[in-house]
Amino acid sequence: MEKWKRSARLVDMTQQLLSQPYRLVPLTTFAERYQSAKSSISEDLAIIHEVFSSEGSGRLETVAGAAGGVRYIPQMDLDHARQVLDEICERLANPERILPGGFLYLSDLLGEPWLLSHIGKIFATAFAGKKIDAIMTVETKGIPLAYATAQYLQVPVVIVRYDYRVTEGSVVTVNTVSGSSRRMKQLSLSKRSLEEGSHVLIIDDFMKAGGTVRGMIDLLAEFKAKVVGVGVMVETPAEEQLIDGFVSLTQVTEVDVKKREISVGLGNLFMEKEERS
Amino acid sequence: MEKWKRSARLVDMTQQLLSQPYRLVPLTTFAERYQSAKSSISEDLAIIHEVFSSEGSGRLETVAGAAGGVRYIPQMDLDHARQVLDEICERLANPERILPGGFLYLSDLLGEPWLLSHIGKIFATAFAGKKIDAIMTVETKGIPLAYATAQYLQVPVVIVRYDYRVTEGSVVTVNTVSGSSRRMKQLSLSKRSLEEGSHVLIIDDFMKAGGTVRGMIDLLAEFKAKVVGVGVMVETPAEEQLIDGFVSLTQVTEVDVKKREISVGLGNLFMEKEERS
Repeated sequence: MEKWKRSARLVDMTQQLLSQPYRLVPLTTFAERYQSAKSSISEDLAIIHEVFSSEGSGRLETVAGAAGGVRYIPQMDLDHARQVLDEICERLANPERILPGGFLYLSDLLGEPWLLSHIGKIFATAFAGKKIDAIMTVETKGIPLAYATAQYLQVPVVIVRYDYRVTEGSVVTVNTVSGSSRRMKQLSLSKRSLEEGSHVLIIDDFMKAGGTVRGMIDLLAEFKAKVVGVGVMVETPAEEQLIDGFVSLTQVTEVDVKKREISVGLGNLFMEKEERS
Repeated sequence: MEKWKRSARLVDMTQQLLSQPYRLVPLTTFAERYQSAKSSISEDLAIIHEVFSSEGSGRLETVAGAAGGVRYIPQMDLDHARQVLDEICERLANPERILPGGFLYLSDLLGEPWLLSHIGKIFATAFAGKKIDAIMTVETKGIPLAYATAQYLQVPVVIVRYDYRVTEGSVVTVNTVSGSSRRMKQLSLSKRSLEEGSHVLIIDDFMKAGGTVRGMIDLLAEFKAKVVGVGVMVETPAEEQLIDGFVSLTQVTEVDVKKREISVGLGNLFMEKEERS
């Protein structure tokens, strides 16, 4: 194998690191791949780190020692996150989203890979530094969001079902009251999908009173799992809030079906931690 | 703004291109961003293209002229795809996947971001060059696969539902016979999720007789949409096959519940097009 030039190494390393966030890559792996000295690899990594961090798009973390190496930590700085969320807010405010009953149509936003990838990176930044073994969401609309976040945190996604499916094996089921429909709902999670004692991040698309998220937390208690955070894309105020300390990206404060107006703002991500409801 | 060094440009351009597959970026965008001559940008792009294509991980396509620019086309060469799918086959063959009734537990595989991202790239490679406006899948397990593929093709995902939800607005509903449960099922798609006449790629996790995919094709007919392809992760032979010309990544030929054995092989992706059932 031939020695790689620096220019080719930089392109290839950037690609390799971006494709596996949080994974520790030993410097020897790179040194062998490129037939280059570790000192050259270290210089390359310094250049990559400098570009990522000055662009606010992430950073490289170096771990010293025999078991050491380098890992890519994805990040999105608050300015960029605000730009993305301002755009989402603008699109959320489109009165054509209003459905009978005052519900909002969100499926178009939740189907756009560009937007999902950005939201995933925002959530990954918000919950960076926490020990996370898995991301939990509930079918159906939460799934793309959870998956987008999981790609940046490189942890598996577990999906809670509203109804039992034969393809899930044994399940644990809890009851919860859905805030939006005021009906009892069952939430089920396959027993084999989550190890006992896991640290779990909950991600969902929409939260009002938080009945569904409450149900997921109850379900996690059955697995003796620890909830390390709750992130929702759209929060809408409720008289009785069942959840504390969640992170919301946007807030829909009012849907006026008659006037066909939607009041939208940024979520509590931009507040200090203490101010979050 | 300062002129960027080549090394920093290469890292940043690689990141930019990878994050937006198929999007045409004008050379002037790069030239202005880096305060560099177009000739230097062209040299950078040649280096990136060379690394991507020699690693079999994609290529850059240059479009000449005033409206021209460069776009990143993600690809995974067949050797690499085979490695990934061999690993998936090995994991599929684990007898612990066998559920009562001979069903297979797949949710763990469909929750792993690393694996999903690779499968997404394999599907994106298999259907590259086709005009695709949207990817369609059915809830629940198809969603992560569809989304992973959509990230590499940069097209939106539309999700077919088994039951009508208030948050979908008006829907079109068709009936279909599910092969695995031999029962009639309803499939619904929100009217506003797909424009009439769209070119649609169908992606799903599992296919036996193809009843669900058949239902999706019927649903697409209601939208006057064109099916440009069907891709499934796991195919299992059925006496009566309702679908022609699909692409499968793996094949589960037998699940012996008594002996606790699963027979798994590569799908028809590796066959010549004419040989596909």
